[in-house]
Amino acid sequence: MPTIKDVAKLAGVSASTASRALHNNSMISEATKERVRKAMKELDYSPNYSAQNLVKRESNTIGIVLPVRENQESLGNNPFFMQIIQGITSICTEQDYMVSLASGRSDQELIKTIQTLIKSGNIRKFIFLYSKKDDPAFDVIQKEGIPCVVVGQAYGVANAETMFVDNDNFQAGQDVTQFLLERGYRHQLFLYTDLDEMVQMERYKGYLAFMQDQGLEPLSFQLSRIDEAETKAKLQAFLEANAFIEAMISCDDMIAVRVQRLLEWMGYEADRFAMISFNNTMVTELAKPSLTSVEIFPYLLGEKAAGLLLDERAESSQNLYLLPHQIMERGSTPGL
Amino acid sequence: MPTIKDVAKLAGVSASTASRALHNNSMISEATKERVRKAMKELDYSPNYSAQNLVKRESNTIGIVLPVRENQESLGNNPFFMQIIQGITSICTEQDYMVSLASGRSDQELIKTIQTLIKSGNIRKFIFLYSKKDDPAFDVIQKEGIPCVVVGQAYGVANAETMFVDNDNFQAGQDVTQFLLERGYRHQLFLYTDLDEMVQMERYKGYLAFMQDQGLEPLSFQLSRIDEAETKAKLQAFLEANAFIEAMISCDDMIAVRVQRLLEWMGYEADRFAMISFNNTMVTELAKPSLTSVEIFPYLLGEKAAGLLLDERAESSQNLYLLPHQIMERGSTPGL
Repeated sequence: MPTIKDVAKLAGVSASTASRALHNNSMISEATKERVRKAMKELDYSPNYSAQNLVKRESNTIGIVLPVRENQESLGNNPFFMQIIQGITSICTEQDYMVSLASGRSDQELIKTIQTLIKSGNIRKFIFLYSKKDDPAFDVIQKEGIPCVVVGQAYGVANAETMFVDNDNFQAGQDVTQFLLERGYRHQLFLYTDLDEMVQMERYKGYLAFMQDQGLEPLSFQLSRIDEAETKAKLQAFLEANAFIEAMISCDDMIAVRVQRLLEWMGYEADRFAMISFNNTMVTELAKPSLTSVEIFPYLLGEKAAGLLLDERAESSQNLYLLPHQIMERGSTPGL
Repeated sequence: MPTIKDVAKLAGVSASTASRALHNNSMISEATKERVRKAMKELDYSPNYSAQNLVKRESNTIGIVLPVRENQESLGNNPFFMQIIQGITSICTEQDYMVSLASGRSDQELIKTIQTLIKSGNIRKFIFLYSKKDDPAFDVIQKEGIPCVVVGQAYGVANAETMFVDNDNFQAGQDVTQFLLERGYRHQLFLYTDLDEMVQMERYKGYLAFMQDQGLEPLSFQLSRIDEAETKAKLQAFLEANAFIEAMISCDDMIAVRVQRLLEWMGYEADRFAMISFNNTMVTELAKPSLTSVEIFPYLLGEKAAGLLLDERAESSQNLYLLPHQIMERGSTPGL
């Protein structure tokens, strides 16, 4: 492998000049930099990151932190993660950055991996693919004062340099409500499993705000996470007591498909209720009728997160970056 | 941060002895190694990988190569990748290895990333999460003679040190056929989209072998990848011409769900045909009836792949490692 000395020799400069040129030092003239670049190219010289890392004490690597998984299935069944990761790697490839992963089966294991990346890998830039309350892994990064971007919204206290990239779930909640209303559905039911989850809460608040703004009565129903027969009985009683309901908003596609099945089990016609949901995953096409759903562009979330870390966040002192979403219309919202 | 010199001082040995102990050099006694380990622990000393990498010219990192994606959706919708990656990171965390990702939107971009990992990241161990014919990214690794494991089976020529980790798709094809036969289904139809895909071909060959072995007539149908109305018309004509068919084997869960919808569209009762498929993804629960499917344990594929790279492959000269699968029984195969 060629060294910086080989490059310097070919460019006709000293090794230290070549090195300064390589690091774009302002003391070196453009003409010299150009000669050095040409020599690098000719020799197929690639700076040794290990050597650079020793000097900089920071590697050209972004660490991606995955949530602790309770079982082997949990993450694999969420297509977001892979798409966000691909957005991140796309930006990193362009800028000659590498991407390392931190994951674990427990908080302790995850923290151990993060510490290895910091201490041994000299990684000083992290992206969290999740946000949750009182997360000890997040605390480790915060205490070290290491720049990081969270894909998701803020829980609790974060350093001033921590950034957040997310969809505007409140706005999306308003948008789906308006979308249904424009199609004639005035009596809308909001379906959720857990309002302690920030994403569900924000979507619900958007729904509430829009309904109240229109002078319409909001209505919500919580699905049990566990017992399907019990959920069916409760939902059936609820729908009979509120027979005026015309449309349903589900907090995500999986909830929507689950409710479609419950409704069929109860004997309702497939077109009795309009249905709209969030995330636009592949199950929208498997649903019956196919589901109108909100695309949240996870790939773009990943690109934005990496961009914020690598472009040194320009001048802005902004901390939260909200990315657009888009309603993808399918058969489940034909209009009244 | 403590250095190896601090460790040496506390352990009462020279820096070079401490370093040799750290690298488990056989010249150093167990007692000394134990003293050095204790000192490392007390000081919370962590070897600087960048420094080690300079000496070893090999970093404690495994590079994971993702397939080139044609669009942003493709990978995200395949839950295997995330599960395989989690299996890999799990082993790496245990052994203080880091995990880097290589991905790209084109062969060129992917190759550029791989070369960055090799040259600048000093990575000398790779895992391919896919195998495909005439893959230029795979060729780069092969030409460099870098140890790698492919999750999938061999296409074409590979170096002797290249290893393959896969499910036994041929055996799985036999197993589902036998499973259906044991439940009384003698007239089985095999559904596929593309037999050029090795996985589909192997599963099909297993089906063929078992049917022929039993003196039963094999029957297969290729679904078009594109036109759904045309596929419906062809499948309908096929089923009418072969009204004796009792059960179907689908090459994967998505095909099975798609065929369930086509059958419903044609007016068949949901229980007219038994159905079994492969991969045991989350859509098996969304299917109607819920799908019996073959679990292929992607997490274990990842663990095995990493284990083979890190444990230096023991003495065995074996190149292909086949991992077990398991039929998960659900409502779609009640028995005749």
